[in-house]
Amino acid sequence: MELHFLGTGAGVPSKQRNTTAIALKFLNDYKGALWLFDCGEATQHQMLYTSLKLSKLERIFITHLHGDHIYGLPGVLGSRSFQGGKSPLTVYGPKGIDKFIKATLSISETHLHYPLKVVEVEDGMSIDLKSHTVTVKELEHAIQSFGYRMKEKKKPGSLLVDRLKEIGVKPGPAYAALKKGERVTLDDGRILNGEDFVGPKKPGKTVVILGDTRVCKNAEVLAENADILVHEATFMESDRKIAYEYFHSTTVDAARIANRANVSKLILTHISSRYQGEQSNLLLKEARKVFKNTFLASDLDIFTF
Amino acid sequence: MELHFLGTGAGVPSKQRNTTAIALKFLNDYKGALWLFDCGEATQHQMLYTSLKLSKLERIFITHLHGDHIYGLPGVLGSRSFQGGKSPLTVYGPKGIDKFIKATLSISETHLHYPLKVVEVEDGMSIDLKSHTVTVKELEHAIQSFGYRMKEKKKPGSLLVDRLKEIGVKPGPAYAALKKGERVTLDDGRILNGEDFVGPKKPGKTVVILGDTRVCKNAEVLAENADILVHEATFMESDRKIAYEYFHSTTVDAARIANRANVSKLILTHISSRYQGEQSNLLLKEARKVFKNTFLASDLDIFTF
Repeated sequence: MELHFLGTGAGVPSKQRNTTAIALKFLNDYKGALWLFDCGEATQHQMLYTSLKLSKLERIFITHLHGDHIYGLPGVLGSRSFQGGKSPLTVYGPKGIDKFIKATLSISETHLHYPLKVVEVEDGMSIDLKSHTVTVKELEHAIQSFGYRMKEKKKPGSLLVDRLKEIGVKPGPAYAALKKGERVTLDDGRILNGEDFVGPKKPGKTVVILGDTRVCKNAEVLAENADILVHEATFMESDRKIAYEYFHSTTVDAARIANRANVSKLILTHISSRYQGEQSNLLLKEARKVFKNTFLASDLDIFTF
Repeated sequence: MELHFLGTGAGVPSKQRNTTAIALKFLNDYKGALWLFDCGEATQHQMLYTSLKLSKLERIFITHLHGDHIYGLPGVLGSRSFQGGKSPLTVYGPKGIDKFIKATLSISETHLHYPLKVVEVEDGMSIDLKSHTVTVKELEHAIQSFGYRMKEKKKPGSLLVDRLKEIGVKPGPAYAALKKGERVTLDDGRILNGEDFVGPKKPGKTVVILGDTRVCKNAEVLAENADILVHEATFMESDRKIAYEYFHSTTVDAARIANRANVSKLILTHISSRYQGEQSNLLLKEARKVFKNTFLASDLDIFTF
């Protein structure tokens, strides 16, 4: 999997950081599908500088309805159709996202040539997909804001080819059937049970992406034991008072959540434009003092895991 | 005046051309006010690479409601407030523009800290401003699309300082009163009439900016004797059939309008992304064969006049 940070800024775009959008790209699994988390203005523009294709986009998760997280949505939906996208797309988001999409597309007379489904989420909702269970919890922000925990389901174990070769079974249709766990009768009359020739199921990865939030219990609950936690860090620790006032987090807030939730890796994003150039390093440094395996995302950064 | 082309593409953004937006900047007149014509997604991003300031933005004219002309509007309105803009702003556009603005701002809970007025325009409308008369006419497109003719009013003539000096009147409060055309009694008892000491009124400039359109009579009517005509040229002349089918113009269509309307300068914009690199020159060349004083805008081009 790859996480592409398309926009890592807060509030308004700057030359250094666009408003928020993060793409999750599945590499060899799920036909290389693409999921998007938030869609600030010019998200489709940022995608022009990546390998990501709108046609591969299957799901969009919106954390909250502030403009810097949704103003790029009509453009992404329209351009996906304009560029020939035909496969279904589902958008998840807070109550109001359906009205936003309907109003913008209908007023601009944008007709999509693919099926679009919109799901308005609620605190505690669990979305059961073929590949993942997505848990949704409400955070603490000036407007209703959600976090999404994407827990990948266990994947089938590998076929134990060496064991099959030992007993003289050569590659062929039997391999595929056994891999699925089926019972197979060989040409020589032997009956083999798939279960005996498939290794243990492989654990999936857990990625947690949170919307704008103050420190809150649900952030910690969602993040528990995750492989990757993406947490906002709009402010430096020294600006803690402003952070609280505007319902945001500091670097240290995010790092503490990562610590308590025992995540493997923390990625900070949604950085205020007041911190320019070298100051990013200071933000990262103060977070790493609390949680060592922290990274601070820049626009177009890719994290592979 | 300066015309800044912030986006010169059609339909979807590309690396070369953003979707449509044109800024008209008054230099020494009208306190350096800024007017914007259309507002495709990422217009505020493009402005980051210019000298233009959202705080100076006084009026936005929307030609039609297609996404590539309006999806940047909520971002511009919101960021103008976020960055401290306090002065009033008026948006003109087709019926539906008010609903678009209200829906996007209210769903995203964007509260503007300046007075916003929205005026829905109609064919034949004339907007009488202090500095300009703006004439609005409907063009011929798949959706209601308007053109705007901005005719600057005559400006007061210069004060004839040499004549005043000849008769022994020195610079002072009398100069200001005479410039306004008032009657002034001097200390020595002489009575002067402002009219006798002010040169002829100076003619204003006429700028015409059209929305997407097929060739149509109203384009020609709006453009008559204009100093500058900005006309779409989505297609090359060899793609005339597609142009007509999609309610657009070719380079030659635009040049013929310029010719018939007797304009001084034609600027082509809204160029389809199918024409890349060197092909732009071909588009310009074929238009110049019909109307010599033609230019083809690229993103961030500035035309001064």
